[in-house]
Amino acid sequence: MISESEVEQEEFTKPTLSIRHSSGEINKRKTSPGSKQLQRVKKPKKTSNACLTCRNRHVKCPGGSPCAKCQAKGIVCEYSEPKKKIMTSMKYLMGLQDEIANLKRNNIELLRELSEFKSTQNNIDITNDSEKNKIMDKTENNRPSELEDNEEIASTFAQRSGRLINSTLDQTYFVGSSSMTLFGLEIESLISKYLTGKVVKPLPTSSVSPPALTQSQNGSPSTGSYFDSKVKLTPNHSTPDCLPSNKLYISIDQLESDPFTFQFMVKLPLSDTPTLLNLHFPTYSYAVLLMDTFLTYFDGCFYFFNEGLEKVRLKQLYDEYDGFKTLLHGDSILQAIWFVKIFVIFGLGETYLGTKSLQDKIFTAKFANDSKIIDTRLPGMEFFNQASQLLHYIDCNESIECSVKEGSIETLLLYALFLQVADRTIASYFYFGQALRACLLLGMHVDSQSDTLSACELEHHRRLWWTVYMFERMSSSKAGLPLGLTDNTISTELPQDIKIDDPNYIFFRAETISNCIKIVKINAKILNQMYQRQPSSNILPIIQNIFKQLVQWRNQLSDYSQVDFSKDDDKFEISRVAANLFTEYFQGINLLIRPLLFHFTSIQLKRFKNNNTYLNLESYSNTITTLLNFSLQASVNTIRSLWNMMETKLLSIFGYMDREYLFTSCCALLLFNTAFGIHEQTYKYLDQALTIFTLMQNSGNQPSELRRAQLLTLMINLDFHDTLHDLILKHSKDDVNNLTTLSSDYNIAKIKTETMRKDSIHSILNNNNDCSSRNNVSTNWNYLSHSNNPMTNVPNNNNSIGNKDNGGLEASLDSLSDMINVTLQQAYTAPPLTELGSEIIAKNVDQLDPHNTAPLMSLDEMLNDINHVSSSDTQLWKEISDQAMWLGDTMDPTSAVRTDMYYKDVLNNK
Amino acid sequence: MISESEVEQEEFTKPTLSIRHSSGEINKRKTSPGSKQLQRVKKPKKTSNACLTCRNRHVKCPGGSPCAKCQAKGIVCEYSEPKKKIMTSMKYLMGLQDEIANLKRNNIELLRELSEFKSTQNNIDITNDSEKNKIMDKTENNRPSELEDNEEIASTFAQRSGRLINSTLDQTYFVGSSSMTLFGLEIESLISKYLTGKVVKPLPTSSVSPPALTQSQNGSPSTGSYFDSKVKLTPNHSTPDCLPSNKLYISIDQLESDPFTFQFMVKLPLSDTPTLLNLHFPTYSYAVLLMDTFLTYFDGCFYFFNEGLEKVRLKQLYDEYDGFKTLLHGDSILQAIWFVKIFVIFGLGETYLGTKSLQDKIFTAKFANDSKIIDTRLPGMEFFNQASQLLHYIDCNESIECSVKEGSIETLLLYALFLQVADRTIASYFYFGQALRACLLLGMHVDSQSDTLSACELEHHRRLWWTVYMFERMSSSKAGLPLGLTDNTISTELPQDIKIDDPNYIFFRAETISNCIKIVKINAKILNQMYQRQPSSNILPIIQNIFKQLVQWRNQLSDYSQVDFSKDDDKFEISRVAANLFTEYFQGINLLIRPLLFHFTSIQLKRFKNNNTYLNLESYSNTITTLLNFSLQASVNTIRSLWNMMETKLLSIFGYMDREYLFTSCCALLLFNTAFGIHEQTYKYLDQALTIFTLMQNSGNQPSELRRAQLLTLMINLDFHDTLHDLILKHSKDDVNNLTTLSSDYNIAKIKTETMRKDSIHSILNNNNDCSSRNNVSTNWNYLSHSNNPMTNVPNNNNSIGNKDNGGLEASLDSLSDMINVTLQQAYTAPPLTELGSEIIAKNVDQLDPHNTAPLMSLDEMLNDINHVSSSDTQLWKEISDQAMWLGDTMDPTSAVRTDMYYKDVLNNK
Repeated sequence: MISESEVEQEEFTKPTLSIRHSSGEINKRKTSPGSKQLQRVKKPKKTSNACLTCRNRHVKCPGGSPCAKCQAKGIVCEYSEPKKKIMTSMKYLMGLQDEIANLKRNNIELLRELSEFKSTQNNIDITNDSEKNKIMDKTENNRPSELEDNEEIASTFAQRSGRLINSTLDQTYFVGSSSMTLFGLEIESLISKYLTGKVVKPLPTSSVSPPALTQSQNGSPSTGSYFDSKVKLTPNHSTPDCLPSNKLYISIDQLESDPFTFQFMVKLPLSDTPTLLNLHFPTYSYAVLLMDTFLTYFDGCFYFFNEGLEKVRLKQLYDEYDGFKTLLHGDSILQAIWFVKIFVIFGLGETYLGTKSLQDKIFTAKFANDSKIIDTRLPGMEFFNQASQLLHYIDCNESIECSVKEGSIETLLLYALFLQVADRTIASYFYFGQALRACLLLGMHVDSQSDTLSACELEHHRRLWWTVYMFERMSSSKAGLPLGLTDNTISTELPQDIKIDDPNYIFFRAETISNCIKIVKINAKILNQMYQRQPSSNILPIIQNIFKQLVQWRNQLSDYSQVDFSKDDDKFEISRVAANLFTEYFQGINLLIRPLLFHFTSIQLKRFKNNNTYLNLESYSNTITTLLNFSLQASVNTIRSLWNMMETKLLSIFGYMDREYLFTSCCALLLFNTAFGIHEQTYKYLDQALTIFTLMQNSGNQPSELRRAQLLTLMINLDFHDTLHDLILKHSKDDVNNLTTLSSDYNIAKIKTETMRKDSIHSILNNNNDCSSRNNVSTNWNYLSHSNNPMTNVPNNNNSIGNKDNGGLEASLDSLSDMINVTLQQAYTAPPLTELGSEIIAKNVDQLDPHNTAPLMSLDEMLNDINHVSSSDTQLWKEISDQAMWLGDTMDPTSAVRTDMYYKDVLNNK
Repeated sequence: MISESEVEQEEFTKPTLSIRHSSGEINKRKTSPGSKQLQRVKKPKKTSNACLTCRNRHVKCPGGSPCAKCQAKGIVCEYSEPKKKIMTSMKYLMGLQDEIANLKRNNIELLRELSEFKSTQNNIDITNDSEKNKIMDKTENNRPSELEDNEEIASTFAQRSGRLINSTLDQTYFVGSSSMTLFGLEIESLISKYLTGKVVKPLPTSSVSPPALTQSQNGSPSTGSYFDSKVKLTPNHSTPDCLPSNKLYISIDQLESDPFTFQFMVKLPLSDTPTLLNLHFPTYSYAVLLMDTFLTYFDGCFYFFNEGLEKVRLKQLYDEYDGFKTLLHGDSILQAIWFVKIFVIFGLGETYLGTKSLQDKIFTAKFANDSKIIDTRLPGMEFFNQASQLLHYIDCNESIECSVKEGSIETLLLYALFLQVADRTIASYFYFGQALRACLLLGMHVDSQSDTLSACELEHHRRLWWTVYMFERMSSSKAGLPLGLTDNTISTELPQDIKIDDPNYIFFRAETISNCIKIVKINAKILNQMYQRQPSSNILPIIQNIFKQLVQWRNQLSDYSQVDFSKDDDKFEISRVAANLFTEYFQGINLLIRPLLFHFTSIQLKRFKNNNTYLNLESYSNTITTLLNFSLQASVNTIRSLWNMMETKLLSIFGYMDREYLFTSCCALLLFNTAFGIHEQTYKYLDQALTIFTLMQNSGNQPSELRRAQLLTLMINLDFHDTLHDLILKHSKDDVNNLTTLSSDYNIAKIKTETMRKDSIHSILNNNNDCSSRNNVSTNWNYLSHSNNPMTNVPNNNNSIGNKDNGGLEASLDSLSDMINVTLQQAYTAPPLTELGSEIIAKNVDQLDPHNTAPLMSLDEMLNDINHVSSSDTQLWKEISDQAMWLGDTMDPTSAVRTDMYYKDVLNNK
């Protein structure tokens, strides 16, 4: 019996466990010694199961792809893969994990040896980080001196550059000029300013959420937050046994040990009797899957905890969970801190896995007799709520000093990350701050324990520190708030591939996180030098200097980290870890060149009044064109990367970064359209971006809903020649047509091996043989083909309101179209383009190259372009610097709150 | 009856209410229109009451000063003043408060008008802050460029400059090189380094606390913290009616409305039933006294809340506390936040008032039937514990987002301040951070609401912001941690004397807080440029530049803010607010010149091995002498200021700043002694400082105990020629002789009017007619005359352990002396000085002038001295910069923890 199941699992369990490999470590895998064995499952054998449509209709499926029944009806025929139940044993799972861990260790060891070998063999080849830093340092010194005085005794009382907006919890808070929110608002204000009389109309998007979501919203007075109160107790669900049998991880659950409840005795202040806190743990395999999912999205670029250590601890917990004291030394606070950490990891894993609704049911089934299951909308919230309860227990019983205790920094950091993902920016900002201060108190910013820690512990501390550092930088940058500390106070070394002295530790190769740190540093510099206050001098030297650093960063990447973005769209691929790295890089480019783009847009908006042509790029120097192309390509490549993530099921549907970087890139493309009329070149990518937003929104990612609505509004208002008309209409309709929750489909497919993933990509590509003509507007619908999938997997909701809502949707369809039309009519439309206008656009298209098909310029060429500023540009740069439009100073100081609230109202009143 | 009491009170209530005036507003008072009326009570009428000794012995006192009985026994005869009970009515109190508030408003209005008048009449006179800032800006540009690159992309991986130490809660944490703790450790390590074979012996100080304190320590395993756990519940005290009748504020309490208990319904998570939280409020008059006391110590330089607003709210609460909802809009969280604020104000007020033990009794008497009275040692802890309970309630029920709600920033700031005072550095650091982030989220660093707030609200926001800013700077500087944000991100205007548009608001004159902000900024710059990492170049230009800024800061002070430190010690006086300002300024000077001092000390320590003479200052340039004098005077003047505070009963016995600045100054003086042999010149001030430390320690200020022990240890180990021998012995004995709690005596006397205070100073001065010869060592005992007061006011403790402890003390007396002698013998002693050595000392004494009796140098002269560096100094500065000894790099990296722990052990095992 056992041997039989072990035979069976050998073919099917790998998908689950190798999920990490399908993302960040594609390159590594190809050369890894264990890959051959794994590739056995490369071609999934044909199954005799029913297709999804037939299964949903409970009819016998004739088989084949497409099956005869689907073919007859002319609908897309899809199978959920893999269709087999996964039979596995704990022992086997453990064996696989050990193997993976060993491989990773070997890998690191090899890398280290290689690097040592190289450095002795060939001193000319500079691979050492500190060497590179020195090179970068030198270029630093070229900076003009007036930019460097960051520590004025008396500040020059600059204009504020930012606005107060309202959070989803209805708290007013400040966002600075580098924030995404302000970027959208700034563009809107530009339109209002130059196109007098035309007030920007926000589009009342339909953004229909699945009935289950809409319904739960009705009950709560608060506007669209996952967190109406900290802990919400609802009666237990009544769907205990309708577990869909075609879900991979369900099968695992059924085979594994039961999930269990850990009872934690807590004593609250003001209460004399201790209370039992029930901690609901998932099954072991699901727990590991969640941790692996988390690592898939974050490991490599960031370091939130040590994978090896936490997996050992997790196994200990499941092996002997009533003997847990041996694990954490019997200290109940340390134990609670660890529990918070592990629950937030579970929560984040589930958020990124997107398995919410199903996990809900598993959960409910297992703990149907426990009334404290929490009703929420964001995947992972059950785990997060448990973590929050524990954190409050710690807060109430222990002083804030425990933030510097073992494991606290990791916990605070993860907790802040979850809050960020859950769109609770303010709370997240406070917890990041607490993690930062805990690091400083431990002297982690200066390697204070380098003499006393073991090599692994020290590396753990360092990577943790740098992750705190990066999140501090990134979240401050995204919120437009001042940085929490300056770089000159830091002397901690960058991560290294160390010699492992404790076999429990697993580290990702150091190169990736070091590259991430470096790009985050550069981006923080952009924030600091360009977005904190009105420039006191010409900003060109700043831009030149940082441009050089960005190009150098890209150039110093090893082959392992490099990505070829010049490939055609259908051949382009990128790993998750590289996508993290490069979207951050592209974000820096967009922030850097935004002043230029704003300037051209404002010129063009002024021109529309008198002259119905576009700006002719030929009248500007190479410097300008190089910079603009840099930003255009960054925007396009951000969208391409995320589109690739979506195709490979590695998009973070509920993540923060993917969404925000997508938004910035779209806004930049719209500005390019407005200034230079290159609508055709950007059409495809705007379409892809809107599709991604729709997927995110329909999965329940509420901030995406806001971003999507803002984006559509901008498109309508900036579409002076009706070139985006079809796209707008299409994506307005998408809201209605895509009632199918893309996300549930998405998530099923997500759990595949890398090999399977590649196959499925190929099958998608093969099905769409017209890929090469994707630029053609009429074929754009193909992108959404899988979202038209008739398998509308609306979560089973025993509530009849679901149907009512569907009825209401039919009714709202007409009025929505009406509203879109009204909005479109109200928007400004310029007269048709003159022939001259069309010629200019053609010229601009020649100058601007979103695909970067030209041969890669050498570093020197690029820097030469950027450093030899034509004298004709001097006046341009002076104007840009003087007006400082990118700081949002054109905005009416009181308009920000209204505008942002307006969107929220529109979205909430739908 | 009412009229009778009103007549009586008119003569006696003013002392209580004018406590604020006795400090910060001495100058203003003199010209204030209402002062004439108040001066009626200048001469307190002779009372027929018993002297303290007679009263304590329950014998009839013959009267007179000294009384015949005391005179016969040869003991000091003292009366507690005022001896009358205070009869007052609420109405009258309110009337007085209104009057004071009105006067303050008028004052501000006058100042503003005056300033407007001046600026129109005479544009040459630059009084405007922003103008001054511009002037300072210009001087900024002279900075050498290599110092300004604070935002390196790649940090240069400096040596860490700091060490991990253990907190009182036994948490390990990092302190940087600018911290006071490290300063002491650095000096010790210098000694060990250069005097080979001589290990620094910490002195096992006796530091005997009053029995009550020692007893409570026995029960707790944690080492000397006020906070063994967050909320400690003890059985109710059994001393309900032994209220001493000779305490001024007791009399008020008995007359006023009863203290009351406010029941606050709280619902804790995990608990289904709401709990009633009992908030114990003091009597109204005591509440106002506490708030006024707080303001006495902090108002002017800082701004934690608006005095006017909070007093109005407080009155509302007491007038109709069951109708409190009208006050805070029925929002229970806002209400709780306000309660936390007001309780922390009460707590801090009581801490600074130092009335703990007595208040304990009042409290116990009033709430004897409530078992939740908490046993603590720090005055104000009862209130603070109540605030903590409420804060936990908020934490548990509300998300961290509420930190940006109305009133939260003030509350967080005050809470952090209390934690700092209570020596909970780590917790305090976290709460300051939270307050800072809340400010940033509200955009207070960029005046984000300047368009929407009223003039008063905006000014409130600005002053609050700058206070958060200052505490961030000061606490980071003192802990040696990186700054939380850079100045270039701030564009909030400095406080101004605005036109008051809401009569409820009261603001202190803006000049003081602005000066405080400016000096804190300069000091933060010192931290940033000199104490963050190994200097990459010669530090002389940094020192010159900041020296200039410090001198300019001093020079720009108005007559109102200026203090004449050149006065003789017996004529010198300083207000509390000026002491706050100037001790911060002196601290900056000491930090700036510390590298120089360290260098000379290390040279001299090396010389002692071969050559028993001191360094001859004549061989160095004027620059060196000017800088050294600057630091010597700063140290001496810090001690003089605090000594004056002690004499005028305005020393903050439990405060953080006074203690730490005193410690830095003493350490600097010891380095001067070591390097230049000027023992005689510093003797008096070291004596004064030790006396202050003893007072603090005996009042129960535990960090002072540590500082005092460190100081005595340094003195023993650096006293190579036995010149400080008498002083060491005397202050070692002090521990034993001064069992009398100085503090209780101190606190009684504290509650006096300014006029009374002045009289009492005069009487002290008259009693000590040998003041002019204070430099004479033998008369130094006079300073302690009042501490030899036989009225040993040991708090009544019904526990017999108290007596046992007294018995134990007698026994330990001999062994203590033995231990001191052993330590003294173990310390290094150089051979007697040669004649040359004595000559050099005499020459050095000529060069170094602690009293600043020379005519004030003009700004130009001073800057000239500092900027024309003799070529002979070049090598010196290079050595100083290269060695960077002030960064603690001479220390053994692992020694810090041990050393600090050692002190703690010694103190705890006593």
